[in-house]
Amino acid sequence: MAAEIVNPRSDSDTGQDGEAEPFDSFDPAFALHRGGKMAVQATVPVRDKDDLSLAYTPGVAKVCSAIAEQPELVHDYTWKSSVVAVVTDGTAVLGLGDIGPEASLPVMEGKAILFKQFGGVDAVPIALNCTGVDEIVETVVRLAPSFGGVNLEDISAPRCFEIERRLQEQLDIPVFHDDQHGTAVVTLAALRNAARLSGREIGQLRAVISGAGAAGVAIAKMLVSAGIGDVALADRKGIISADRTDLTDVKREVAGFTNKAGISGSLEDALAGADVFIGVSGGTVAESAVASMAEGAFVFAMANPNPEVHPEVAHKYAAVVATGRSDFPNQINNVLAFPGIFAGALQVRASRITEGMKIAAAEALASVVGDDLAADYVIPSPFDERVAPAVTAAVAAAARAEGVARR
Amino acid sequence: MAAEIVNPRSDSDTGQDGEAEPFDSFDPAFALHRGGKMAVQATVPVRDKDDLSLAYTPGVAKVCSAIAEQPELVHDYTWKSSVVAVVTDGTAVLGLGDIGPEASLPVMEGKAILFKQFGGVDAVPIALNCTGVDEIVETVVRLAPSFGGVNLEDISAPRCFEIERRLQEQLDIPVFHDDQHGTAVVTLAALRNAARLSGREIGQLRAVISGAGAAGVAIAKMLVSAGIGDVALADRKGIISADRTDLTDVKREVAGFTNKAGISGSLEDALAGADVFIGVSGGTVAESAVASMAEGAFVFAMANPNPEVHPEVAHKYAAVVATGRSDFPNQINNVLAFPGIFAGALQVRASRITEGMKIAAAEALASVVGDDLAADYVIPSPFDERVAPAVTAAVAAAARAEGVARR
Repeated sequence: MAAEIVNPRSDSDTGQDGEAEPFDSFDPAFALHRGGKMAVQATVPVRDKDDLSLAYTPGVAKVCSAIAEQPELVHDYTWKSSVVAVVTDGTAVLGLGDIGPEASLPVMEGKAILFKQFGGVDAVPIALNCTGVDEIVETVVRLAPSFGGVNLEDISAPRCFEIERRLQEQLDIPVFHDDQHGTAVVTLAALRNAARLSGREIGQLRAVISGAGAAGVAIAKMLVSAGIGDVALADRKGIISADRTDLTDVKREVAGFTNKAGISGSLEDALAGADVFIGVSGGTVAESAVASMAEGAFVFAMANPNPEVHPEVAHKYAAVVATGRSDFPNQINNVLAFPGIFAGALQVRASRITEGMKIAAAEALASVVGDDLAADYVIPSPFDERVAPAVTAAVAAAARAEGVARR
Repeated sequence: MAAEIVNPRSDSDTGQDGEAEPFDSFDPAFALHRGGKMAVQATVPVRDKDDLSLAYTPGVAKVCSAIAEQPELVHDYTWKSSVVAVVTDGTAVLGLGDIGPEASLPVMEGKAILFKQFGGVDAVPIALNCTGVDEIVETVVRLAPSFGGVNLEDISAPRCFEIERRLQEQLDIPVFHDDQHGTAVVTLAALRNAARLSGREIGQLRAVISGAGAAGVAIAKMLVSAGIGDVALADRKGIISADRTDLTDVKREVAGFTNKAGISGSLEDALAGADVFIGVSGGTVAESAVASMAEGAFVFAMANPNPEVHPEVAHKYAAVVATGRSDFPNQINNVLAFPGIFAGALQVRASRITEGMKIAAAEALASVVGDDLAADYVIPSPFDERVAPAVTAAVAAAARAEGVARR
């Protein structure tokens, strides 16, 4: 058996259509990845017969029997409540696209070690060699007894929306598509701080999102939940509005809760007079369009590795500039959110991750910046040790407040 | 969603039909299991931006692209080749029976940490909330891209046979049902040494196995592969022979390659004059039947916690006595086999675990005893540090010799 492997897009960094990626095993990235990036470890001793008789037979039988009698004890006496499945089908991996499950594993391992490093959450890569919505849903449902949560990763739109929704309906553990909600949480945190810096309320702002895939749709929903003045999305064909006849079901839903102003036309049309640009598309935006934005605009150009607007250009017109890159200030990076969100949800055994928990995460993340707020510091560094504890605590408290905590 | 939880059998150690297991959180077994027995760890640093840019984006993209171009690189640059899925449906857990997936997790975690401790193999518990053969097979096939091997565990017979066979057909990684083959390997090792001690050949021996479930059937196959003189199995209804009309498909197959002598009747009938008793049933054997065995017999009474023949009784008649318990000499314990078998198979990227690899494992295990061979030392201790390296090396060499190694 071998999963179907689709060649990475020809616009990958080789620049050589159809040719094999030059592969240099002395490259630092390859050297670091040799043998993988993670391992399992025992947290109890197995040094002698006595240890073995407690951790395995016969002692383990008492614990199994107790869980069979009182199912909720599985959270206390196994690692279930500390372990998250990082599930992908390999169809939308980074900027590489549909590269298949095996080729996605380095990303999933990377995600798993970030869960551990930043949130103290154990995570296991589960790369599936099926891509049907029904197959993915039923597979994850069958696996769920072993895990305390499910982090969906790099599954292409629009399937990712239905997969997440159906898993949330069928499972009583948190299911979270990080490409959607992690990005949305961090974006909202940056936007809150940018607004605070410029003395404005979220409700006064009109935002334009370039990209109507997983991230764009989730950001739009979150901004609406947070009370944005207005937000419009643009896909490759232009602004999403109810009068378009070419919309998918998801985009039709988007048209229903965005673009109150009823604008139509191109992305550039939408940017005229807009307060916020949020790029999650990978395209480029003409400088003239950036220049047409409102005074004191915010430009969050998050495409990697090439932002939709180069920060040097953005700074000519915008009051706050953020990107997805670590070599510019204000990096909008999901690692600021997902470790703490899962840590908080697992801590209180939340049955799901609600909108309120995500907004609480964004507020906690924004608050870490505190009095140091500045145009080049609207979002903390991933290595700021205050981040994960703040997000964890806020998410746990919100879960309790929203009635989804089970302890 | 909650998996169906079936109460443990009333013959569990409470002795109280239908009542809740007395649950004492100060019991050492519960204290040790608190929070689970395992964790994930990063094996590469993630201390700063530079680390992050190698282990995650953007550096990881090169590794993903290389695997997409050359799929076999997944073994070099992810943890796939060091990680085994420990898969169960919770239907045949220890002596507890069908307790469901959640309640099986303490055993699966125990197994996982034994893989790590004794074989250096990473292992992840995957307890499924489905019990159909088709469902289990398709689920494991979908998961397979993430794993270097599959250890099936505590899945009830006869489903376990078909599940293993179909997974072996569909996957190109080792699939091994430890309840069958691990037990068989260790039993064969003990038998080889018992034979050597008494100056006999395996081909001279007639064995009787009590129990025709997963372990009994696998032991019978392995003894036949190893050239046993004759072997008969007995289930609850008596000796399995071709003239019985109540046999399942698997037992009919067993009838075809065992019991060359064509005996019928009860287990006790079969033991008259037999050289070897192997108990994997959990029943008890009358002392008179043990007394009827041949001079210098071997009694391997492996049921836990109550051997089919108590060692004190067995010693009155038998030359070599072994059990499944750690508090008697000659413990037949699967942990002697599975860590090294998987370590060896993964080391050479074997596509499967062949009969020859299992026999090589048994021989290596037997050879560790060496010149210290004695009636109370036919099998090494699980804590003998020579065991796993010997089994690993023998299995890797056998995989190469049999043409299933891929490096």
